[in-house]
Amino acid sequence: MRIHKHVEMPEDVFPIDDWELIQCQFDPHRVAETETIFALSNGYLGTRGGHEEGRPSNDDGTLINGFFEYRPIVYPEEAYGFPRMGQTIIYVPEGKIIRLYVDDEPVDLATSEILSYRRSLDMRAGVLRRDVCFLTTRGKRVQVTSTRLVSLRRRHLLATSYEVRLPDEGADIDICSELVCLQPDGEPVSADPRKAPLFSHQVLEREHAAAEGLRSIQCYRTQLSQFRVACGMDHFLETACEHDISAQPRDDGHAVLIHAKAEAGSTIRLSKYLTYFSSQTADVAELCGRVEVTLARARRSGCARLEAEQRVVMDRFWHDSNVEVGGVDPRAQQVIHWNLFQLLQASARVEGHSIAARGLTGRVYEGHYFWDAEVYDLPFLTYTAPRIARSILRHRYAQLDKARDRAKELSHRGALFPWRTINGEEASTFFLAGTAQYHINASIMYALKKYVDIAGDDDFLFEVGAETYVETARLWLSLGCRPDTAPDSFYINGVTGPDEYTALVNNNFFTNAMARDNLRNACAVLARMERERPEAFAGLVAKVDLQDDEREAWREAAEQMFLPYDEALGIHLQDDSFTSKERWNLEEMGEDKFPLLLHFHYLEIYRHQVIKQADTILAMFLLGHEFTLEQKRRNFAYYDPLTTGDSSLSACIQAIVAAEIGEIERARAYLRYAAAMDLGDVAGNVVDGAHLASIGGTWMALVYGFAGLRDYGGEISFSPRLAEGWRYLRFPLTIRGQTLTVDLRPGEATYALRTGAGLTILHEGNAIELLQGRPVCLPITAATTATA
Amino acid sequence: MRIHKHVEMPEDVFPIDDWELIQCQFDPHRVAETETIFALSNGYLGTRGGHEEGRPSNDDGTLINGFFEYRPIVYPEEAYGFPRMGQTIIYVPEGKIIRLYVDDEPVDLATSEILSYRRSLDMRAGVLRRDVCFLTTRGKRVQVTSTRLVSLRRRHLLATSYEVRLPDEGADIDICSELVCLQPDGEPVSADPRKAPLFSHQVLEREHAAAEGLRSIQCYRTQLSQFRVACGMDHFLETACEHDISAQPRDDGHAVLIHAKAEAGSTIRLSKYLTYFSSQTADVAELCGRVEVTLARARRSGCARLEAEQRVVMDRFWHDSNVEVGGVDPRAQQVIHWNLFQLLQASARVEGHSIAARGLTGRVYEGHYFWDAEVYDLPFLTYTAPRIARSILRHRYAQLDKARDRAKELSHRGALFPWRTINGEEASTFFLAGTAQYHINASIMYALKKYVDIAGDDDFLFEVGAETYVETARLWLSLGCRPDTAPDSFYINGVTGPDEYTALVNNNFFTNAMARDNLRNACAVLARMERERPEAFAGLVAKVDLQDDEREAWREAAEQMFLPYDEALGIHLQDDSFTSKERWNLEEMGEDKFPLLLHFHYLEIYRHQVIKQADTILAMFLLGHEFTLEQKRRNFAYYDPLTTGDSSLSACIQAIVAAEIGEIERARAYLRYAAAMDLGDVAGNVVDGAHLASIGGTWMALVYGFAGLRDYGGEISFSPRLAEGWRYLRFPLTIRGQTLTVDLRPGEATYALRTGAGLTILHEGNAIELLQGRPVCLPITAATTATA
Repeated sequence: MRIHKHVEMPEDVFPIDDWELIQCQFDPHRVAETETIFALSNGYLGTRGGHEEGRPSNDDGTLINGFFEYRPIVYPEEAYGFPRMGQTIIYVPEGKIIRLYVDDEPVDLATSEILSYRRSLDMRAGVLRRDVCFLTTRGKRVQVTSTRLVSLRRRHLLATSYEVRLPDEGADIDICSELVCLQPDGEPVSADPRKAPLFSHQVLEREHAAAEGLRSIQCYRTQLSQFRVACGMDHFLETACEHDISAQPRDDGHAVLIHAKAEAGSTIRLSKYLTYFSSQTADVAELCGRVEVTLARARRSGCARLEAEQRVVMDRFWHDSNVEVGGVDPRAQQVIHWNLFQLLQASARVEGHSIAARGLTGRVYEGHYFWDAEVYDLPFLTYTAPRIARSILRHRYAQLDKARDRAKELSHRGALFPWRTINGEEASTFFLAGTAQYHINASIMYALKKYVDIAGDDDFLFEVGAETYVETARLWLSLGCRPDTAPDSFYINGVTGPDEYTALVNNNFFTNAMARDNLRNACAVLARMERERPEAFAGLVAKVDLQDDEREAWREAAEQMFLPYDEALGIHLQDDSFTSKERWNLEEMGEDKFPLLLHFHYLEIYRHQVIKQADTILAMFLLGHEFTLEQKRRNFAYYDPLTTGDSSLSACIQAIVAAEIGEIERARAYLRYAAAMDLGDVAGNVVDGAHLASIGGTWMALVYGFAGLRDYGGEISFSPRLAEGWRYLRFPLTIRGQTLTVDLRPGEATYALRTGAGLTILHEGNAIELLQGRPVCLPITAATTATA
Repeated sequence: MRIHKHVEMPEDVFPIDDWELIQCQFDPHRVAETETIFALSNGYLGTRGGHEEGRPSNDDGTLINGFFEYRPIVYPEEAYGFPRMGQTIIYVPEGKIIRLYVDDEPVDLATSEILSYRRSLDMRAGVLRRDVCFLTTRGKRVQVTSTRLVSLRRRHLLATSYEVRLPDEGADIDICSELVCLQPDGEPVSADPRKAPLFSHQVLEREHAAAEGLRSIQCYRTQLSQFRVACGMDHFLETACEHDISAQPRDDGHAVLIHAKAEAGSTIRLSKYLTYFSSQTADVAELCGRVEVTLARARRSGCARLEAEQRVVMDRFWHDSNVEVGGVDPRAQQVIHWNLFQLLQASARVEGHSIAARGLTGRVYEGHYFWDAEVYDLPFLTYTAPRIARSILRHRYAQLDKARDRAKELSHRGALFPWRTINGEEASTFFLAGTAQYHINASIMYALKKYVDIAGDDDFLFEVGAETYVETARLWLSLGCRPDTAPDSFYINGVTGPDEYTALVNNNFFTNAMARDNLRNACAVLARMERERPEAFAGLVAKVDLQDDEREAWREAAEQMFLPYDEALGIHLQDDSFTSKERWNLEEMGEDKFPLLLHFHYLEIYRHQVIKQADTILAMFLLGHEFTLEQKRRNFAYYDPLTTGDSSLSACIQAIVAAEIGEIERARAYLRYAAAMDLGDVAGNVVDGAHLASIGGTWMALVYGFAGLRDYGGEISFSPRLAEGWRYLRFPLTIRGQTLTVDLRPGEATYALRTGAGLTILHEGNAIELLQGRPVCLPITAATTATA
């Protein structure tokens, strides 16, 4: 166990509140991180938490999910099959900015004296509020109150209510509201491999710009990806002050200027509506037309109605998804709510896209989708918003043809999904920790199976899943081999598993076990389909040209799949050669040497037993039904001390398995680590965006870890293990259309069917029949004390 | 055995001649390859074989060994320890060009009608001659005769004698002789990882340019590496024709214009002298002064004397180095002479530098030094020009401090030599086939030991070798480990061996065996030094801070060095997991799929048993004394069918081991493949330069392969095995200052000591005492017929 950093949030700056994330002192050193933690998003449109006045700013901007520019990739040494075109998410024109001048003096947080400051992300309301009182150099107090929301109901809309008040003295007020293209970034200088490449030129080419009164509509196009974005802003001004309005066309967009002569005590309230539409096919007129409609509707509705709508969606979300905890850590509920809120923000209106590694809270990882979405975020969505889970899985399916092309390019049969991508094309430039991670294919199918099992969506299974099963099974069969030295074993050589501190190995246990699961399920699904939906099956056979002997070959490969095991140590081997390497003694390492990847050459890392993220341990969780508790214990005891925590995908999984084997305090430590990844800035890079995998993993650590949910094949079981001092852990789950609430307290678990006709679950191995309106309360027998 | 390409040289174009490489028809499609095979060089200054008139040209240019510009390396995904600055050899200003106009019409091979053409690389004279008769559009014959040499005696000098004759009719003749900077290359577009990155901007900044009469002196500087090159041209004109001369300053350099009114039958003879000096420290005036002196001396000497000097050097070279063969292939002697001539050209005046992978015949691989120099070229030099071998080894030693820095950067002790470099800094950008090839450290020490043993140069051993032994031994000790699973074995994990089609493996047999040799020799050398030169030893101990326990640790690591072996197959394993991979059936592959690296992803290649170049087989040769003939046979039988021949470093080694195990016809086929690498364009890329490793390997294949020389530890033994039909194989060797000639004929071997006091050698295992003037003739008992 290595949990190297505990950043506490100082209570005087970030007071504890279950439902709000509050910052009550402005701190210029926290500008960067608060841009991330106060970001707003609806899964389609996201904006970082920069301040309206535009200053100070670290890397403020607005993102549209999937809106990318191609970026030619140049390798210092080229090779066959290396991706030639990268995809990089780019900031769309920025429209949050409302600059304020009082008596010609710019008023903002960077330069003005601040008398009071309070910013709050209201997670029940789904809005970001800010209340600042400035003092001008001439001694006038200026009260600025703003509310910002990215609408969950209206996918393309961002709205800001901005109110300026002069409590003491009158002044000349100028407000400059912008919708402009951000300046391009300079050349990247970071040696951090996790940083996104940036563009040093203006990627957006203007195709249209028109302004009239308080409204501006603009349209841009990317040069290589040929994405078009139309955006617009409109305003509604409420004030009794004498004022005039003018539009200012600029090279980089438009500004609307409002000049007002404000009396003492008077108020100027500006409602600003921003909207974005993007498309690779729609023309300028069509896109701008959509912008006009959305703006007009928003202006008609007004900010108050938008906030009310938002509240309705939020209420529904918390009803379906809230996890309530009561325990020793008073900040726990706030942190958990923030994590859940991020899951909503990343997914709510994701339609037709997936969830990027940092959601829409930052540009790091280029807005790419990894396996993070399927393995770390889909469990939550599957249990709380199955419609969204389905949409994300369908998005993968839409990329199946590109995966087929990629498989062919790499001499494989079937389909090879990209390690990182937006549009389905492989965009990984470091193949050892990219293309070599073949396991993503099995992980996608694992997530699909879970969705199908939990949602009971057989139509999806047969329409989308079956074809993908065929192509992934084909991939595994062509990837593996039976070497001369072990003719009855199926080996998968030359891959990288989840642990990126070990690369290019033979028989990565996780990969092989997951591939076996993939192959077996492919056989099972096709068998069921042939039986239950013969016509659809015949159609599939024709479509994918399924040969008679293929299924038998998959079955045989699964049977013969080699899973490396060390008899002497009694553990599963992370790969064939893992234990023949030198152990890296993490205990002796200085904290300044983490993450290792920034301080050691990959070769030095690779030649040691050292782990970036749960690998064999992840298999112990995902395929837990295949292993005994004792095996899990031994594996955990061996691998956990070698795990660095250098990946944000690890602690949540370690928490789950630690909980299962009874190491509750360790599980709690890992849960804390995962949950505080962003708010505690555990990895030191929250400035770059929120860690969506760890965020989804936090839910998993609570539900799979402490409530002990297991669900392989759709069979729901619980083995709750509350940590010492926890008073309760409560959450709802949606299972095949029914809603189950789980309420755990020290020594007892209550299961209630909120809706639905009846559900069988297991509690500590015993089957329980649940009927609506008849909660069942059962004792928890598992130990709740620490074992390590 | 896979020998996929036999390009025959058509006799009507390239007639057979033992001492000249002749091209007697001009062929525009052979412009690129003839720029390589007709290149001239002295190891310091090299120039590709472009035509004087400048057209047609593929990639003509002139190179100075070690004259490079830094090139920032940008990785699509950065990581710790990746080299940030590349070094790329660049063309110096080009001065070979002498443009010819007859009656205002440009006369050159690209546009003019050619009545006759003959070009000849005279390898006895060390000059390139050309004789062309053009026909102008107005029907006049123009006879052009030129001789070019890069002086072996005068390191900085290139001279051309250029003669124009009008046999039939008079004409206006204009000659434009240039010394100008070449235009920069465009962006590279190749997906071939072996291609050098090019610069798209003019790298040379002019600091000085002065012209007077027929002379021009210029000085340039590179921007990042701060290399200065001063260059100059001067001319001597001999003609009875009325003429005038003018200098033409140009943005890119200077031209000298000669206008002559030529009568029928008259001759214009222009001698052009070109000289280059480069330095990172000397200033403009100093360098230009050197140019002046050299030009003046050359002009005083005249071309005839330069040719005579050249002949003296050449005679000496052939006396010391010639390998004579008589056999069934009538072109064999010509091809062998060409290969030997290239070794001379790459090394003669290399002082202070090493030998680049393509010598000075092309820019591919950026003019970098690899292990090729030590392993493939140094054996020849050690036995024929020990002074040059010593210089190249001293050049490595001069880079020891940078190797120490690199080791530290990679968390190692000791010194880590770069995989590819000019100035000692690692410039490999693909670490799997670069930095991971740790074996280069042992290979350097192996070459050093051979030089010391054969030259008997103990001073060099103790002054240079001992310190390098200490630092390389330290490297191995810190690189390896004793894993928990095998606490008494010394493992070297996570490396790449010579075979670049297998990467990042544990216990590469070649690496471990060579490291063991390195460690053992380090102990032996230090023990001897302590005994024989106690003062020098004390100085070394202080200099490198040698600790008491270090040598014991090296000895123990050597003793415990793990050499993977497969009992069932009875072979040494190329690495721990080599045989657990799928075999790649090369027999079934289409010829268009080679080299594999251009048609398959590295991952696909790595996961198969497929070999780019001799790896375990190379160990069977280099460390042949440690293995039985039967082991060599079994290893060869296993690995040879898996070897693609995709590397030019392989066939020569396969030839040597094939010969040793009695597979003579196979050995002959590999010898042919190696010897014809460039003249037969076996790899299809002779356009990019001559393959110096294969060239040195050709000598090795003859001497180590067919004459069966073995020399580990300085003990000289021969086990000759002439191939069927060979009439003789003769060559001299310089051993500890004595000259031995070996003369092999069918059934008998004659050893003669040309100079020296006496030498003991082994013939077929029997010790023979040789004395000067007393040749010994012995029967050859080995089979000479094919076994496969």
